[in-house]
Amino acid sequence: MPHETATGTVGKLRPSPSYSFTVRVSLPQRGGEFARVAQVIAEEEATLGAIDWVRVDGDDVVRDVTILCVDSDHSAAVVRAIGALSGVRVDSVSDRTFLVHKGGKIEVNGKLPLKTRDDLSMAYTPGVGRVSMAIYEDPSKAWALTVKGNAVAVVSDGTAVLGLGDIGPAAAMPVMEGKALLFKELAGVDAFPLCLATKDVEQIIDCVKAIAPTFGGINLEDISAPRCFEIERRLQAELPIPVFHDDQHGTAIVVLAALLNALRVIGKRPDEIKAVVVGAGAAGIACTEILLAHGIADIVVCDREGALYRGASFMNPQMAALADRTNPRGSKGAPDDVLPGADLLLGVSAPGSVSYEGVRSMASDAIVFALANPVPEIRPEEIPINVAIMATGRTDYPNQINNVLAFPGVFKGALKVRASAINETMKLAAAQAIADVIPADELHPEYVVPSVFNHRVAESVADAVANAAIASGVARHPR
Amino acid sequence: MPHETATGTVGKLRPSPSYSFTVRVSLPQRGGEFARVAQVIAEEEATLGAIDWVRVDGDDVVRDVTILCVDSDHSAAVVRAIGALSGVRVDSVSDRTFLVHKGGKIEVNGKLPLKTRDDLSMAYTPGVGRVSMAIYEDPSKAWALTVKGNAVAVVSDGTAVLGLGDIGPAAAMPVMEGKALLFKELAGVDAFPLCLATKDVEQIIDCVKAIAPTFGGINLEDISAPRCFEIERRLQAELPIPVFHDDQHGTAIVVLAALLNALRVIGKRPDEIKAVVVGAGAAGIACTEILLAHGIADIVVCDREGALYRGASFMNPQMAALADRTNPRGSKGAPDDVLPGADLLLGVSAPGSVSYEGVRSMASDAIVFALANPVPEIRPEEIPINVAIMATGRTDYPNQINNVLAFPGVFKGALKVRASAINETMKLAAAQAIADVIPADELHPEYVVPSVFNHRVAESVADAVANAAIASGVARHPR
Repeated sequence: MPHETATGTVGKLRPSPSYSFTVRVSLPQRGGEFARVAQVIAEEEATLGAIDWVRVDGDDVVRDVTILCVDSDHSAAVVRAIGALSGVRVDSVSDRTFLVHKGGKIEVNGKLPLKTRDDLSMAYTPGVGRVSMAIYEDPSKAWALTVKGNAVAVVSDGTAVLGLGDIGPAAAMPVMEGKALLFKELAGVDAFPLCLATKDVEQIIDCVKAIAPTFGGINLEDISAPRCFEIERRLQAELPIPVFHDDQHGTAIVVLAALLNALRVIGKRPDEIKAVVVGAGAAGIACTEILLAHGIADIVVCDREGALYRGASFMNPQMAALADRTNPRGSKGAPDDVLPGADLLLGVSAPGSVSYEGVRSMASDAIVFALANPVPEIRPEEIPINVAIMATGRTDYPNQINNVLAFPGVFKGALKVRASAINETMKLAAAQAIADVIPADELHPEYVVPSVFNHRVAESVADAVANAAIASGVARHPR
Repeated sequence: MPHETATGTVGKLRPSPSYSFTVRVSLPQRGGEFARVAQVIAEEEATLGAIDWVRVDGDDVVRDVTILCVDSDHSAAVVRAIGALSGVRVDSVSDRTFLVHKGGKIEVNGKLPLKTRDDLSMAYTPGVGRVSMAIYEDPSKAWALTVKGNAVAVVSDGTAVLGLGDIGPAAAMPVMEGKALLFKELAGVDAFPLCLATKDVEQIIDCVKAIAPTFGGINLEDISAPRCFEIERRLQAELPIPVFHDDQHGTAIVVLAALLNALRVIGKRPDEIKAVVVGAGAAGIACTEILLAHGIADIVVCDREGALYRGASFMNPQMAALADRTNPRGSKGAPDDVLPGADLLLGVSAPGSVSYEGVRSMASDAIVFALANPVPEIRPEEIPINVAIMATGRTDYPNQINNVLAFPGVFKGALKVRASAINETMKLAAAQAIADVIPADELHPEYVVPSVFNHRVAESVADAVANAAIASGVARHPR
């Protein structure tokens, strides 16, 4: 029997452009023929998109039909069903997501003309020698005279990519290129992906230290816990530029921003809410830290074994330290066991780690941030009616908690003032700046997080972060 | 007393755009005032460029005057002389070369629109996850679905930058950015500079191996000898993508291309000429290797101690191996001592390493390639009349032997067929392709090397290199 849900739809993800396909079909040129295709698509619960006319081929007409599905299995089933229609031939299937990836998503361009010998003698030899010598004599000039002042390395070893796990550096590239794309589009920052063929902590540290002169900041990405903690800590200590593990701090900043607005909408105070964090990986730990820093005292963090409590044995010191500072009531058990009465569920784990019943046992006007990607811990379509505000990590639902809201502006702000680090002050300033982008009179349960396409976000975050860097003494350059 | 020279001008470098400045001067608004400024510039032997009107300021007029000089000392003298004129005030001096470097010379851009949620859900999460999984299942798909298939890392440790020596990674950046600019402009290749904060051979090797998954090729640059030999050899052996030390092989390819055409112009055969190579660094050794491979048997190589001969003691095995295979007549002494009667002088060392008298002692119709950068071993203005063909590494003289003619097309060709290496067959094919760009009836002593702005060069080289890769069995993909 279907559950009673907040959205009214039942138990199914919606078709999405991320699983859209263009199918070239050939079918008889007669009235009603295409209706059979449309009928099959509807029966399979897919969404019919654009229909392009390709050509007439004898008695047949060839069309390109774009179809939105839920996932790969779904799209395969739709294509099979179309192909099974009598008189209909499927000529080819083009996956639009793969098409946009063809040849990669980024390119490196020159910023100046290079058409004449004069251009060349200034941009390259012999003129470039004087610029090199100026930097040799005063290395700080590299910030102004090379790409360094606007450049970020997006570094991953491919060990914790999205929800896909340890898929390696080559497979991590599309994600890191996507980040580079977003850095430029949203903040004008020149980011380049570097996917590393090593999982060795010392080798990663050595390699990032070696490449650092080229960059004004290092964005660590999708590196598995607990290695990510050591790598970030050591690099931040040993490099004169910001090192920011986005899975930790980017997520934490946006979660706090969303929470600031969600609490305003439902009228609860941070110090009176009970929170459950499901997932004690990099994101879970960083989010818990920022929630604690913001005055939320009653937090129960769960890993795969259940709630973390003082005195249990832990796989890494970060988790032990967290257990010491959380779970004041000493709760034990699985996420569902600790959810009753909770005001906030923050899922940074995997689909299915909480149940409908568990979420139904939360307080009224509950807040659920289900950030597992691409499939959330609990789907928005399955959310019970006691939940007032729901957010996910997905592009295709309201209230998307997406690091994209943080990292472009955070780095832009840090680069602006040539910051030596991205510290706590700067992170809190970033969260507040994101939250403040939505005017008070526009706040709404389905609008506690600004759109990732709101260009004011990166600007606001950059300004706030740059000011916070100056205030906290890590800026090396006036704005 | 001035020497008798081939060009007729005497002992002075010409003013060049690479040392051009824009001076903002304020001077009385009266006839004849600007003529005094122009007169001073002429007296200082600088060249007057554009003159822009800025504004009238009381009785004065403010102008921006662009002036081409020979070097920094020269430009400083010119500015001083202008400032010393009565009634003339120098408001500011803008160095045009520094202006073009402001903010760096490259940027990283997205190749697809990112304006809607649909765009984002295909280029980034959740759609990107499917692309990552496709690469995880078949890593060779990274060539088509990420920037790898068109990406080259330009890697330097800054130990041998131009003629400037060990100036470090930050100071090397403008040169590596310049290369990236040229890769894109001339061959459409996406190159990114990585300047490394280590000089340790093992650390450099480890770091380049670590970052390799992102790239389809590695261009090593400005790494000092003999470390560069070991680094290149090891990386080529241990990586599945081409590793090409441009200072060695790029130079060798273009030197051979220029020599092929020079010999046609003066009508000498490779096997009958005597060659002297001055400089036994990375470029000198690689050029000697390619000359030997092309059938030039009588080569004397000189390092700072003089001619290399069999049985002498050497700082590295590359030089010992070279001494065994060169200097068949057992010549000894400084470059000037071994030049008498030589048909080819190839200078890959430093200004002043050969004298006017030494070059004057060469055979008639001698060929001089003086490649020290930015100041050649012997200046074109000082070249004696027995020299038929002169080439330098400079942008602002005829016959520029510039690696720019080789590396963009060489890598483009290698990437086209996903080559696993750039081997000798491919290098010789590249040299022939560069030489063949100049039609026989256009060959001329001042035109043995095509212009770096001739876009057919990179295309021709790429095609030749791709074909040679297929023929020699290192291509992994049909063109």
